[in-house]
Order: sequence, then C-alpha cells, then structure tokens
Amino acid sequence: MASPSTVPATPLLKDELDIVIPTIRNLDFLEMWRPFFEPYHLIIVQDGDPSKTIKVPEGFDYELYNRNDINRILGPKASCISFKDSACRCFGYMVSKKKYIFTIDDDCFVAKDPSGKEINALEQHIKNLLSPSTPNFFNTLYDPYREGADFVRGYPFSLREGVATAVSHGLWLNIPDYDAPTQLVKPRERNTRYVDAVLSIPKGTLFPMCGMNLAFNRELIGPAMYFGLMGDGQPVGRYDDMWAGWCMKVICDHMGWGVKTGLPYIWHSKASNPFVNLKKEYNGIFWQEELIPFFQSAVLPKECTTVQKCYLELAKQVKAKLSKVDSYFDKLADAMVTWIEAWDELNSTGKKPSGNAK
Amino acid sequence: MASPSTVPATPLLKDELDIVIPTIRNLDFLEMWRPFFEPYHLIIVQDGDPSKTIKVPEGFDYELYNRNDINRILGPKASCISFKDSACRCFGYMVSKKKYIFTIDDDCFVAKDPSGKEINALEQHIKNLLSPSTPNFFNTLYDPYREGADFVRGYPFSLREGVATAVSHGLWLNIPDYDAPTQLVKPRERNTRYVDAVLSIPKGTLFPMCGMNLAFNRELIGPAMYFGLMGDGQPVGRYDDMWAGWCMKVICDHMGWGVKTGLPYIWHSKASNPFVNLKKEYNGIFWQEELIPFFQSAVLPKECTTVQKCYLELAKQVKAKLSKVDSYFDKLADAMVTWIEAWDELNSTGKKPSGNAK
Repeated sequence: MASPSTVPATPLLKDELDIVIPTIRNLDFLEMWRPFFEPYHLIIVQDGDPSKTIKVPEGFDYELYNRNDINRILGPKASCISFKDSACRCFGYMVSKKKYIFTIDDDCFVAKDPSGKEINALEQHIKNLLSPSTPNFFNTLYDPYREGADFVRGYPFSLREGVATAVSHGLWLNIPDYDAPTQLVKPRERNTRYVDAVLSIPKGTLFPMCGMNLAFNRELIGPAMYFGLMGDGQPVGRYDDMWAGWCMKVICDHMGWGVKTGLPYIWHSKASNPFVNLKKEYNGIFWQEELIPFFQSAVLPKECTTVQKCYLELAKQVKAKLSKVDSYFDKLADAMVTWIEAWDELNSTGKKPSGNAK
Repeated sequence: MASPSTVPATPLLKDELDIVIPTIRNLDFLEMWRPFFEPYHLIIVQDGDPSKTIKVPEGFDYELYNRNDINRILGPKASCISFKDSACRCFGYMVSKKKYIFTIDDDCFVAKDPSGKEINALEQHIKNLLSPSTPNFFNTLYDPYREGADFVRGYPFSLREGVATAVSHGLWLNIPDYDAPTQLVKPRERNTRYVDAVLSIPKGTLFPMCGMNLAFNRELIGPAMYFGLMGDGQPVGRYDDMWAGWCMKVICDHMGWGVKTGLPYIWHSKASNPFVNLKKEYNGIFWQEELIPFFQSAVLPKECTTVQKCYLELAKQVKAKLSKVDSYFDKLADAMVTWIEAWDELNSTGKKPSGNAK
C-alpha cells in the first residue's frame, strides 16, 4: 500500500467534503483507500440490523448512523429513507454540512491507470467538480478544461466560460454496472477499457447515474439527490441511483448546471447475484420504459428557482403522471415531499444532528 | 511501412466506399496509407489551378476532378462548389455512386494507438458506421456495441436496438483542430491523449464537425453534406465542415439517425497558419454566435421525409432568419438549393460523370 506521504500535503477540499458510505459490513475496504480518504471525514450509513457493530479501521475520522439514529433524528419523516437497500446512503447527504459529497460502495477498490499507477478517485472527482461543465454544446476533445485539451474550432466563444458543475459520475473497471438480464447473458464480461476522458452530459440528455462512485456539489444539487424508496417493503430495488440521476439531471438542465461523467475509475470487485438482482429490478425494467419519456418531457416552470422548488414540482408531476403506472409512484411522490421537508429541517437550523461519532 | 499482407483478405466495404480527398498538391501522403487505402477507390478533388498536375502514387485506383471538370459537369450549378478552399471536397460526395464516403485531408497521417500499433482509421470508421447509434439516451460505458461493452444498468431496453448511424467523426492526435485564436494562444499545444472511446452525440446536441477525418453513409445523409460557400470570393473560411455538421445534425435528429464521434484517430501533421486562419475565420467567429441558437432551435416539419426535403426547408429557414445577420447567408441559402438540384441531377440518372479517371 502507498504510504500517506504520497498524498499532497494539503488534500483538496479537506474540510469541505464528506465521504458517504452505506454499508452492512466491516469497512475493511477502507484500508486500501487509506492514503486517499484518511484526511477526509466519513459519514457511514449502516444499513440493516442496527444492533450489529460495524468495524471501521483505525485512524479514520467518521460518524456513523444506523437505523435507530435515522429514526431518532427524522422521527416520522424517517419513512422517506430506504431500509435494507443502499439507497439509505442519501441520509448521509442530508446530515452532512459540507459543500461536497463523495459516495462510494464498500465493494469498490482502488483501480490502476494503464501506467499501473493507483488512481486517486476522489482527487479526480474534485477536479471534475471544481472545473466548469459544457452541457450546451459538445466538445469533441471531451473536457476542454483538462490539461492538454481545449475547445475545438467551431465551438462558440460565448459558451466557453461553461457552467457550474453539480455532479461528477465516475466509472468502474472490472465488474461493469450491468442490469440482471445483461449479467445473466454475459456472466464473464469484465470492463477492461480505460477511457481517458471526462465529458459533460449534454443538456436535455438523460443517462443512467450509478451511485457506486459518485460525487456532487451538495450546496448546489443536494436536495435533488434523493435515492427514493427501495428495499424493505418496496416493490423495486436497484433503481435508487437511477431515480436520483433522472430527477437531478432534469433539475440541473433547468437550473443551468452541468453533469460530468467518465474518469475516475474505481475497481469494482464483485458482481452482485444476478438472480437476486432480477427480482429487485423486475418491476423497474417495465416502469423505466414509462419513466424515461416522463423525464425526457418534464418541464419545470420558471418559478422553480431553487432545487427544493424544482424537486417539489417534480414530485407533483410524478404523482400526476406516474401514479397510473403503479401506486408505488404515488407513495414515492409523497416520500419526495417528505425528503425535502426533512432536508430543510436538518439544513436550516445550522444544528448538526449527532450520530455515533468517533 | 506495413506490407499489404497486414490487411484482411477482403477489406470491409471494398466496393461500397469511396475515399474523397481534396488537395492542391502531390498526394505523397498516400504512401503511408497504402496498406489501408489501396483496395479502395479514391475520388480526388483538385482545388486551385486546374492546369497543375497532381501526382498520385502508383497503384491507387482513383478518379480526379479539377475546377474545369466541376464546371463542365455542373454547368452554372458549379457556383455552389467552393474554389480555393477544401470545402470543394463535397463535389466528390456528389459524384460518388457508393453507399459510404470516407474523407481525409492530405496532411493527415497514420496515427499509432498506445500499444504502438498503426491505426487503420478507415476500418474503425466502417465499424462505427455499420453498428447502430444511441442518440436517445446516454450510455456511460460509451458505444455499447463495441466488444467488451454493453448497455449499463438503467438503460431502457426499448432503446437498445439503437438507430442507423449516418456519420462517424474521427479525431486527431498531435495538432488539435483549434481555431485561430486558440492556435495563437497555445502555439505549442499538441493532443497526446488517446481516448479509447466512440460515442453517439445525443439527439438535440450540436457539435463542431471537423472534415479532416470523417466518414458517412452517403445513401442516408449525403445530400446534407454540403460544405457551403468558402474560399475564393467569400467572406469566410474554415466553417465549411462546421456548417455541414450543424445542418447534418439537425437533419439526423429529425430523421432519427445517429452520429458518432471519437475513434479513429489520425496523426495531424502540421498546424495551418494561425494568422491566415484568423483572416478566414474572423466573420465566422461572430456569425457562429447567431448560427448556434438558430440551429439549436430549428424545427423541421413532419412533411420533411427525405434528406433533400429537410435540406431545402433548412435553406428556407436560413434565408428567412440568417439573411439579417449578413447578406452572405442569403447567397448561401441559394447555394444550398443549387447543391440539392445538382445532387439530384447527378444522382437520379444513374449516369456517372467522367473525371480524369486513371
């Protein structure tokens, strides 16, 4: 393992970023990330049985919330936070008081770039978030703000200032993020292609946002990063990050903010069980066919000038247009409203709720 | 140089693709491309002084058109073909009778991939054109049809068939395709980043299409590939491919076809003179600020069911909305109509015009 001395003296955004990790097990995976994560504060959201003790390796600065904490802090509003599903991670977004969030799954390890160098995923996410996005016109040399790149001939000069970047979506080497049908059909497929690019997802374009390796500007887009109702008692799973991605993208497009995808890669170690996944995804596979046209045509009125207003408007449209798809969306629309209420409650007082801080 | 035996026994689309090269000089650059291009037919469009003899290396199968040929074949309609500008290449698209076109500049050489292997750019373009595009939803692992890739979780299944690919836009290592201001500011910048990706430009998104290393399905989109009025007697240059790209993209979006960008790379050997370029681009830099909103908001009516109809409608809109920007666009709109008339004339009779065939 690399020694901590390989990390720059002052890690970027050290006091402005929280790392949110949803988990049901001991966090041994942090050992591999130690040189990169140790300077930062962790928010661990413990899923499942709250009586279980999650072991965190020595030396990490963290706070941990289990289901009892969530219920205590949110009261009846805790109903909007999923149980027995990694969607619970969004509780961590809510209790953070930092400007930026990086969230990562506990089966994700440090990947290597083609030269064999360990990739500091967090550093790349921060670079992505701190440089502008270009959603209004496509640059064929990808992110024009990266070293050695720029805007190409024919790129309008008025658009070269770019817009604020709200989200940085990172990718995965080894086990690709496939759905159950694809996992079943291609059990041996591994992602070995290292694509050395970061790019802005164009305005008006939706994409499948994966929550495995994701960073965002919480101050800008936090309230839109709700991971929905999944897991225990819900008819669907594995659409938590997708839901957040579609809502978030519609709102970013409306607000004029950018979303980047590409670098950094993490090493995704283990494929989840495709049979279990199929059960979770089953309804989503059908519903998604109606969700995409819904989000593609969603329009937010001019009056929606904050993310909260946008999100509540979207909740209203979900209720009006998707309840006919399944009563689940009626419930989800209500949970979206509850989420915003809970967000505002925790984020207006300036008072930080206390978990089981180290 | 690689020997011809390194090429597959039957080159892809050997009898269905023409290589179009605009030039003012001897085509020594073809030596480097010999193993890849020799099986194909070349259409050389000689720009500038028609009395000059262009030398083509032995062994290539080609036809060559100079300005006298263009005037003879098109008569008064030759006015739509630019003179003293590589925009004249589009004459080659018009006289081809093949299904596919690859066009390349004569200062573009064979690039190497990171493993040091020479890149068969044409083969990659053909792969891009023969596999579908996915403009309706973004796939985070890029082209889902490439080996080792697929659609990721959350990609709607109804969209996985993709749509026909009309255009494949390749990139450049070494000298990036920068405008004059960027060339002036970054005289030493070289593109050394090999991004191992092909991706579909999303529907509704415009991009700067460079004509240096470009392939397309002529049967689908040929009539939209008009490179406009540039060069001799015109107030602008270096916007020929941009113009074609914007028109083409609006029409592809309307027709439901896809445009890919990324691989293959060519090695762009020499930067053009930034001072000369600034003179050419000057007006375009201003105009472009009005052109982009125009193309971004252009809507083609349902009745436009062929590329020709789309293109004539676009010409009408150019005349109506851009003539106020500069009288040049009035002339350009007329040339767009002339181009379609000439295209239809040459492409309806089945009679192939004769150039100075080898």
